[in-house]
Amino acid sequence: MFYVIGLGLSDEKDITVKGLEAVKKSERVYLESYTSILMVDKEKLEAFYEKPIIIATRELVELEADEILKDSDKVDISFLVVGDPLGATTHTDLLLRAHSKKIPTQTIHNASIMTALGSTGLQLYNFGQTLSLVFYTENWKPSSWFDKLKENLKLGVHTLILLDIKVREQSEENMARGRLIYEPPRFMNPQQAFSQILYTESERRSELNSEEEIEKEDLLPPSKTLAISLSRIGTPSQNLISGTLEELSNLSKEEFGDPLHSLVIVGKRLHALEFEFAGKFAIGGENGDWWKVGKEVYGVERETF
Amino acid sequence: MFYVIGLGLSDEKDITVKGLEAVKKSERVYLESYTSILMVDKEKLEAFYEKPIIIATRELVELEADEILKDSDKVDISFLVVGDPLGATTHTDLLLRAHSKKIPTQTIHNASIMTALGSTGLQLYNFGQTLSLVFYTENWKPSSWFDKLKENLKLGVHTLILLDIKVREQSEENMARGRLIYEPPRFMNPQQAFSQILYTESERRSELNSEEEIEKEDLLPPSKTLAISLSRIGTPSQNLISGTLEELSNLSKEEFGDPLHSLVIVGKRLHALEFEFAGKFAIGGENGDWWKVGKEVYGVERETF
Repeated sequence: MFYVIGLGLSDEKDITVKGLEAVKKSERVYLESYTSILMVDKEKLEAFYEKPIIIATRELVELEADEILKDSDKVDISFLVVGDPLGATTHTDLLLRAHSKKIPTQTIHNASIMTALGSTGLQLYNFGQTLSLVFYTENWKPSSWFDKLKENLKLGVHTLILLDIKVREQSEENMARGRLIYEPPRFMNPQQAFSQILYTESERRSELNSEEEIEKEDLLPPSKTLAISLSRIGTPSQNLISGTLEELSNLSKEEFGDPLHSLVIVGKRLHALEFEFAGKFAIGGENGDWWKVGKEVYGVERETF
Repeated sequence: MFYVIGLGLSDEKDITVKGLEAVKKSERVYLESYTSILMVDKEKLEAFYEKPIIIATRELVELEADEILKDSDKVDISFLVVGDPLGATTHTDLLLRAHSKKIPTQTIHNASIMTALGSTGLQLYNFGQTLSLVFYTENWKPSSWFDKLKENLKLGVHTLILLDIKVREQSEENMARGRLIYEPPRFMNPQQAFSQILYTESERRSELNSEEEIEKEDLLPPSKTLAISLSRIGTPSQNLISGTLEELSNLSKEEFGDPLHSLVIVGKRLHALEFEFAGKFAIGGENGDWWKVGKEVYGVERETF
């Protein structure tokens, strides 16, 4: 059996009982290491599983999938993925290959940021498409995410924004020289994310020509848009911060702390209970812009719960 | 500590190791019983936890939340929810109350249908708002879900549709007489869901006046729209069926089998790998309408993977 097993969000104990049983009986255990990370290292997982773990790099998964699947028609093999395992097509691709080889497979699901973001108090029903924000470089600032965000904002639904992760990056020099030396992993901090968002927002705004166009198309005015940063969700040091884009963009990297992070841009269909719950994390507490903008721009009245 | 613990999708072993540890040390363990169900009964959970379980009905959670929270500032109390616990505002409400009483809380996340639907091969990123479809009655056929579906279809994103669950329903007679006698639980079968969808689709279509309006607004033509039924996701008898709305609506209740079920309406941004993976479950296999409609209406070319 080829098991694809979600590990959840935080540490070795977020695996399900069923997932752990599968790992325990597997001959080989792979850990997918390039789309997300757990908050614990490989050694801690190995100690908990009482098994060695093989790190599955992107190269291994994409180029040597057959090596991973090998013998899984005869013995049990586990492929571990942080979060819920079927979010990214990389792993559906692995399952398609197994299927074409008539290898039996079982997926063992787990928590994902896409539902754990319920911790914000925002309802999962009210989210639109999920976006990913990549690291901007001097010459490469792709802004296609902005069009999807606008689609969500026009409908009034909330948007989850996943922040870029870079693992096993090569410097240009090492790549040019064919040296397999990798840079330390990088995880985008919300401070950088907000700065990129404001950059693209202002670029797009500058393309608008008339007052009417701005009125109609300017969907993300920083002082009038509510957002929430989500840091280390599902871990003991989980931290949420809510406020206007402007307030959030003025915070330092340290205020968000260690990875992993993601963001939510709040849609106009925000309702009172969502507003109240997410307001628990407001910059400036009861005096924060969260409450003023929620009332004046989003039109939500506070209620007592 | 007041723990809110997700149980995942299928049976007693879908709880996480962390969740199980919290249950084991709790003085009282509640099981929320009205927004979803596990595939195993209370007795099996009690045997696995070696603890009695208190069933938390909607009345208990909404009217006697303080009873549930009682003493959780001094001892550990667990509140178990099928899936990931923070999808519905009922439970965020409980956390807000705990917060106002200064009770420490911890949420232990788990798998939800909202990410497990990755089993279809469709990418989670490409989903829009999630809808719920309630049981239509003779006099009550609410169709507001259709407007949200159209919003998603216009963007070309996929739509998850959750199907109604009725637990602890009273018959009109019993309700009138104040008798606390409850009907057996009901879970909507995809057969009924597709029939309701086609009903509303045809009602809405009949409101359109001109050929142009039909061209522009008729977003859900049954023979040209792809959909997928998801039954018992995450359980050993998991079953997916993909096809056109028309094909799917011609299947019998039995072909979908036991609950729980949900549906996906496929959006036009469908890409080749999604198309291929979900096509594994196509009615009629390689000769099904899935492939024809995917190519002609959705414009996806098949690739070899």
